[in-house]
Amino acid sequence: MAVILAIDCMGGDHGPTVTVPAALDFLRRDPDCSVILVGLQEVLLPLLGRAQAEFGARLRVAHASEMIEMDEPIASALRTKKDSSMRVAADLVKSGEAQAAVSAGNTAALMAISRFVLKTLPGIDRPAIASIVPTLNRYTYVLDLGANVDCQPEHLLQFAIMGAMLFSALEHKERPSVGLLNIGQEAIKGNEAVKRAGELLRSGGLNFYGNVEGDDIYKGTVDVVVCDGFVGNVALKASEGLAHMISAALREEFKRNLLTRLAALMALPVLNSFKRRFDPRRYNGGSLLGLKGVVVKSHGSADAFAFGYALERAAEAARNNLPERIAVRMAQLSGAAT
Amino acid sequence: MAVILAIDCMGGDHGPTVTVPAALDFLRRDPDCSVILVGLQEVLLPLLGRAQAEFGARLRVAHASEMIEMDEPIASALRTKKDSSMRVAADLVKSGEAQAAVSAGNTAALMAISRFVLKTLPGIDRPAIASIVPTLNRYTYVLDLGANVDCQPEHLLQFAIMGAMLFSALEHKERPSVGLLNIGQEAIKGNEAVKRAGELLRSGGLNFYGNVEGDDIYKGTVDVVVCDGFVGNVALKASEGLAHMISAALREEFKRNLLTRLAALMALPVLNSFKRRFDPRRYNGGSLLGLKGVVVKSHGSADAFAFGYALERAAEAARNNLPERIAVRMAQLSGAAT
Repeated sequence: MAVILAIDCMGGDHGPTVTVPAALDFLRRDPDCSVILVGLQEVLLPLLGRAQAEFGARLRVAHASEMIEMDEPIASALRTKKDSSMRVAADLVKSGEAQAAVSAGNTAALMAISRFVLKTLPGIDRPAIASIVPTLNRYTYVLDLGANVDCQPEHLLQFAIMGAMLFSALEHKERPSVGLLNIGQEAIKGNEAVKRAGELLRSGGLNFYGNVEGDDIYKGTVDVVVCDGFVGNVALKASEGLAHMISAALREEFKRNLLTRLAALMALPVLNSFKRRFDPRRYNGGSLLGLKGVVVKSHGSADAFAFGYALERAAEAARNNLPERIAVRMAQLSGAAT
Repeated sequence: MAVILAIDCMGGDHGPTVTVPAALDFLRRDPDCSVILVGLQEVLLPLLGRAQAEFGARLRVAHASEMIEMDEPIASALRTKKDSSMRVAADLVKSGEAQAAVSAGNTAALMAISRFVLKTLPGIDRPAIASIVPTLNRYTYVLDLGANVDCQPEHLLQFAIMGAMLFSALEHKERPSVGLLNIGQEAIKGNEAVKRAGELLRSGGLNFYGNVEGDDIYKGTVDVVVCDGFVGNVALKASEGLAHMISAALREEFKRNLLTRLAALMALPVLNSFKRRFDPRRYNGGSLLGLKGVVVKSHGSADAFAFGYALERAAEAARNNLPERIAVRMAQLSGAAT
């Protein structure tokens, strides 16, 4: 299916120097798709070179006179900057001119603007953000990472439904397995919200595996791991910290002396193949879920290679009607409940 | 100071085959210390060989006719097995015959028995378990890992005090820095309990650093990281899962073909030195905090080398009057509050 992406070209640490080349590469790879580059016209146009001739109507620029800063408070992003590139991208999805928006900008602002412009789907109390985490042989989707703290059991059930629909849209698996992040396998474990969420999930019509523990995230025990935004944030940041520590320590060990440097040289192809395999750039693209439209958040520090993955994920989610899938599932749930 | 340890020799995956040799090694290393080996006399005595002659009064056996199984429910551990090795070890601390108890058995049972026998210190609502996590250059103490879920802000403050006193007792640092695990640096971030805990901590008289995030655990930003038992469990288990995945993937990459196997051979000394550096056995020994006595929990799968670290930590905590330190600090706090 032809998909049109609205790309906030001004967001992220590198702005148009990353987003524009990534968009052009994307157009080359996905001949069905079109893009609308959103941002300061006078900045974007000179970067296009011969691309306009190359892609014709598949490449458009939508001017947006303002930019949301990375540390901009939500209130000012939402109320005073009505012509920000982020806002215009969301507006394009709202109006139907585009099927998905992608931004590497300020996460909180993107969530607030998307929620304000697109609104949440019926039955969804709080949009969530899902992230993709590598395992040995595949990957796990984890949500929420969208700062939804103090979640009620019903929110966790909604996250589970959104996560399962995201997995099925992006990975083409009809009934992905869903695990509830807890501190033990047994149903009696955990805090009150999680225990009651377990009950809801057991009767929620999903392919519910049961409780999973922190290590199951990287074991790939289930396709989707559900937790509140506090726990999800801490778990993934702790993992990130550990990964950095391991890589820094390995580097130190390999630099210890002449002999270890020689060993490093010998091991380089192996280490590089390891790095390629778990290259976080390939996991770039967090989905904002529960909105009446597809919105994907790229990591702020993404390079063009990484940003391309966020674009692919947005296109795939739109192509597979992610918001409709969630809406249908939510309607079935409320139908079953009444 | 001379310290007497009561060692539950029957607990853990390997029982006396690990605990007894570890205890004897400990006696050799720490000529000031004595041990009481607790368990089935008929099992323990034959394992001692010439040790009784070697250590004389420093080595005693206390018979205990029962054992707590690894999956034994707390109720039966507590009520029906009054002569379990775990219970007798705790009783020896209670009576003052020993200054610390160490067990590699069932964590929940150890916590329940220790709490029942030793009681909590004044002002402590819930005992906690602290674990030690490696960083690049040192380590971080993290608590709670003792399944205290749904924590109130006051509990987090108590954990902070207990963690700081543990760090100062074991690492000989007078005012260790304490961080509150959160999803952002700013004081306004986080769930309600954590936000209010931040306020308590700012006026709690500790060396409070402020909020830390998941990656700060492995960065070593602070000496002590405080969180509720749910978050702590998930964060450390997720890290554990990631570490396993990385090591399994590296092994795969190094086994790919003849060339990579050769590289592995060359890199072996480096990889081994890396493994030694982060050898989890050296971090063995979780402290049960907030009790009127020192209790240390060894990992169930610990070998004698790892179990020895748990023994050292128990002796060091007792030598430095950990329970008294916590009691004094709690008394100051309640004095300041009234």
